[in-house]
Order: sequence, then C-alpha cells, then structure tokens
Amino acid sequence: MTTDAGARTRTFTWTDPAVTVAAARSMSGVELMGALVRGELPRPPVCDLVDFGLTRAAEGEVEFAFEPREFHYNPIGSVHGGIIATLLDSALGCCVHTTLPAGAGYTTLEIKVNYVKAVTASTGPMRCAARIIHRGRRVATAEAWLRAADGTLYAHGSTTCMLL
Amino acid sequence: MTTDAGARTRTFTWTDPAVTVAAARSMSGVELMGALVRGELPRPPVCDLVDFGLTRAAEGEVEFAFEPREFHYNPIGSVHGGIIATLLDSALGCCVHTTLPAGAGYTTLEIKVNYVKAVTASTGPMRCAARIIHRGRRVATAEAWLRAADGTLYAHGSTTCMLL
Amino acid sequence: MTTDAGARTRTFTWTDPAVTVAAARSMSGVELMGALVRGELPRPPVCDLVDFGLTRAAEGEVEFAFEPREFHYNPIGSVHGGIIATLLDSALGCCVHTTLPAGAGYTTLEIKVNYVKAVTASTGPMRCAARIIHRGRRVATAEAWLRAADGTLYAHGSTTCMLL
Amino acid sequence: MTTDAGARTRTFTWTDPAVTVAAARSMSGVELMGALVRGELPRPPVCDLVDFGLTRAAEGEVEFAFEPREFHYNPIGSVHGGIIATLLDSALGCCVHTTLPAGAGYTTLEIKVNYVKAVTASTGPMRCAARIIHRGRRVATAEAWLRAADGTLYAHGSTTCMLL
Repeated sequence: MTTDAGARTRTFTWTDPAVTVAAARSMSGVELMGALVRGELPRPPVCDLVDFGLTRAAEGEVEFAFEPREFHYNPIGSVHGGIIATLLDSALGCCVHTTLPAGAGYTTLEIKVNYVKAVTASTGPMRCAARIIHRGRRVATAEAWLRAADGTLYAHGSTTCMLL
Repeated sequence: MTTDAGARTRTFTWTDPAVTVAAARSMSGVELMGALVRGELPRPPVCDLVDFGLTRAAEGEVEFAFEPREFHYNPIGSVHGGIIATLLDSALGCCVHTTLPAGAGYTTLEIKVNYVKAVTASTGPMRCAARIIHRGRRVATAEAWLRAADGTLYAHGSTTCMLL
Repeated sequence: MTTDAGARTRTFTWTDPAVTVAAARSMSGVELMGALVRGELPRPPVCDLVDFGLTRAAEGEVEFAFEPREFHYNPIGSVHGGIIATLLDSALGCCVHTTLPAGAGYTTLEIKVNYVKAVTASTGPMRCAARIIHRGRRVATAEAWLRAADGTLYAHGSTTCMLL
Repeated sequence: MTTDAGARTRTFTWTDPAVTVAAARSMSGVELMGALVRGELPRPPVCDLVDFGLTRAAEGEVEFAFEPREFHYNPIGSVHGGIIATLLDSALGCCVHTTLPAGAGYTTLEIKVNYVKAVTASTGPMRCAARIIHRGRRVATAEAWLRAADGTLYAHGSTTCMLL
C-alpha cells in the first residue's frame, strides 16, 4: 500500500449466473464442483467480484485460492472481515454441496467466523479449505480454515446447512 | 437477471485506504463515522468493491444502505452469503467503533450470521443496521439486521469485539 | 461461599418426563408453556437438577427465573458457562415452542452464547428472557438475555431451530 | 425411562470450590488439569451436579466422560441442550486452560454449539473431547465434540476465550 492518495481502478467481468444454475440442476454436487474447478462452467459472479476461485473439490472437502488486495480493505487498514467470511462461506457451502446428489439442494442457515490474525496485502496467496463435520438427512455441518502459504491460520469458521 | 449468457463488466474506483486510516487516529469513533457518512473522508475500498455505504452513525448505532446486484451472486442463484456477511460485519464493527474515544482501537474476534431469506437482485434497496448489546472495558458485543425497504428481515447476526 | 472445605449435600426430586412429553402432544406450545408456568404439568427434570423455572410465556416470548448457587460453580470460582447456556437454551427453545400449534415439533440446531460478566452466588436472583427474531415455515431464530434483578446484563445468545 | 410417573430422588455431594480455586493459583493449567484427572483436587461443583468428570488432559487437549440420565431431560424427551453445552463448554475451557502457565487466567467470551443428534438415557457412556485451534497472546479458540462409545457424533462446538 503506497501513501499516494490517488484513485485506483479495477474492471472485472462476470457471466450470467443462470448458466451455471441451470447446469447445476442435472449434476451432482461433486460433478458441479469438478466442472467449476476445471473451468468447464462459468464461476459465480461473486468469485469475479472478490477474485477467488475453487481449486479442489472431492466429496466432503473443497479448497479455494485467494490473494488479498488493497481493494479488499476495511477502514482500519486490513482485509475486511466480510471478504474473509465470503471465502469461508464459499468453502463451507460448496463442501456441503459436494455431498448432494443431482436434484438436491441446500440452504445455509448460519455461519460463524473467528478472526485470529489480520490479513493484509502483504500476506500473499492464501488457501481456504473446508470439510464436512456432520452429514445427516436434513442437516449438514462443516468447518473451514483460511491459511497463508506457510500454513499460518488467519481465520476459521463453521456452518449449519439445511438439505432440501 | 436476463438469460443472456454474455459477459458483463463493471469498473469501480477506490482510494488509498491509508488516508482514512491516518485520519482515524485523531478522531473518536463517532467523529470518524460522521465524516464517512458526510463523505468528508474516502470510504474504505471494500465499500467501493461491494457497493454499499454508511448512511447513519450515532454512539452505539449505525446504518448502511445496499442494493443487491447480479455481480453479488453465488452459484445457486442468489446474493452470496459472504456479501451479506460483509454488510453485517461492517455494521457490527462500525457500531462498536462509535463507542470508542480517539486513539482507541478494536478487533473483531468473531461474527455469527443467520440467513433467514434469500436476497436477489429483485429484493431492491436494503438497510443494514446494528446496535451495541454490551460495551465493557475490554470487550463489546453488538447485533445487526439486514432488511428490505418494507421491513422484511433477510439476515441477522452478532459479533464479539476486543477493545485495544 | 465460605472457606470451609467440608462437603455439602443437596437432594432434589424430579418427575418422569414422559408425563409432560405425552401431554405436550395435544397442546399448542403456548398452552403447554402456560401449563408449566401454572404448575399444572411437572416441569422437566433439568429444571429440578439445575433449579430454575418458567415464570412467563406468551406467543414468541418467555421468561425463566434462576438464582445462582455454589453447586453451579466451575473450577475458576463462578457459575459454570454451561449452566448459563442451560438457561439461555431453555428460554430460546421454549420461546420457539410458543409459536407452534399442537402436533408440531422443533429441534434446536445450534445455540451461540456470549458471556459478558461473571455470575456468582452473590449476584442474586436472575431472569432469563427470550423472544423470536424470525419465524419461518421450516426455521425459526430467537435471542435471549440473562439479567440480574437490577437489569445488568450477564449473558446473551441466539439459536437456530428447525420446525418439524 | 420407565412409565412410572412417581417422583425420583438424587442426592449429590460437592466440595467448597475455593479449595481448587486457591490451589489453581500456583499451578500451570496442565498441572491443575492433571491433578483433577487423578482426583488430587476436588472437582468443581458443576461436575458433581451434572455428574461428569475430566478423564484426560494434555497441553491443548482434554477429554471428559459423561453418562446421560433421566434427570438431564428437557420437556421434549431427550437430554437438555444446556447439559450438552455444559460438557462442551467444560472441555473447551479446560483445553484452553491447559495452554496457560501458572498465574495466568482466561475468560470464555462465547461458545457456539451444534446439536446433530438427540441424546437419551439409552445412548450410554459418552466422551467429550476438545482441542486448541488457535493460541495467540491475548485470544485462544478451541473446538469440541461429544461422541457415544461407538464414535457417533451427537454435538460439536467451538469457543473464543480471552487470555488474562
């Protein structure tokens, strides 16, 4: 971060989310996540907005890659907690999704996020991984972690999802 | 949301966050939030990225305005939970900040978010309000709500912050 | 609390919970809670164990009374957080229950409890109140507070319940 | 649980908690927890009340044993969520305590508990284990699980503690 007060600009491009939503209807969660990892389906707009992407998906486990940038900052000089929550929520929800057959859906009832270390642009590339804790008939829970390349933990969280 | 699969583009501009961070040092939380509401200081980059802004701030109470857009979408066809968490986390943190004198700081230890209704681009303008529950010497807690213009509740949450 | 290291003894009595469980089947939540307030049905065993009771119930709102005692203590010299969670969980669950018609049930998916001040035997009589935040078709959320007689807040929390 | 509606009675005995609180002052967390496991110090009153005990403690890891009984029941015919929260809160707090040197203390700021399966008297002996997620200078977080003897998960949770 420089001390130059001048304005910065970023342009991003996204794709109509209806494309992936429609394709998702006939795919199992693992198939959908695999197609997103391989870039066979457009990633959801929020990934283009925040600039992060799914890098790995298996049943009950997923991983996203993210690099903190100045445009993620809050008014106290670090990456905003909501951006970190976006990473964790994505990993948690996709992880639950990988356990679902085609035609099944889920809704996230709640997430809880613990912030244990401030993330800044100098933190460098990060990984956000999640795994299932409990997969019941109507409810699933999962946990997630955000780590720097050296393994240092920056945030962790959990979710409760209802299966539809 | 149209069914046109073509790419969409958005360009946003932000300001070096160091300007506001530096100004914040000599201002109480209420003064800083007031300056942000009146546009006397550049808003933090995350507000430019996600496109939301502080509209009201008093001691122990703040409100943000937000309008859901397609670029906030998740892979299941609604506004991503992390974007909603970004609104709630902002309201919760700023609300705690309004109780601090100049020179004092805080760090968010955790947030918890409940999603009670899906937000889509057709939900229209929303308000995210927060208020203090407990303000101790070392710890503060607060709660927040995200509502549409007609008062319908879409999400709510709480935070635990440590005062420095 | 004296400094006498001698053993203390307490004897409590409870009633087969099946009596109230059976009666509950044909009563709405408000009817059941009203019968518990008036002592027309035996209170659940956990109320006899921990020594607290329902004092008020209306649709979407309940209140319990509790007096902290030495036998509630943790190893660091105050009322154990789990006892406080028991009060909040009771208030949260019963509050959700008051919104249900006869024949409907619910299950608590999660609770979150914030401890903001240590409770000791000298805190005196306390009240734990809860109210509904969101009552949907399949999910309800509620919040609760534990306060001393003078209104001082000691703990607060929230829940997510699934309606069956 | 029988269908006999008659009253049941239980008498329990506890020891002045000041004994263990005083001894704790000169012991590290691991030393204190070890003394509790070996029965060299009286367990805290809440353990006598609810009937559960510490069975294993090492730096950053503890385990409690518990057997569900009828007197733990809620009004809907299973072990009350607050009793389960008591087990998880104990495991989480003691686990954080095992990382502290003599003379240091902690306070639990919040706990979050997920209930994934109903516990009844027929569930049989259970174990509640916790381990540290993050141990910072001022804050620690930990997670815990409640399982039956066959490994089935019944509840899990996490905590945020402030170190003093």
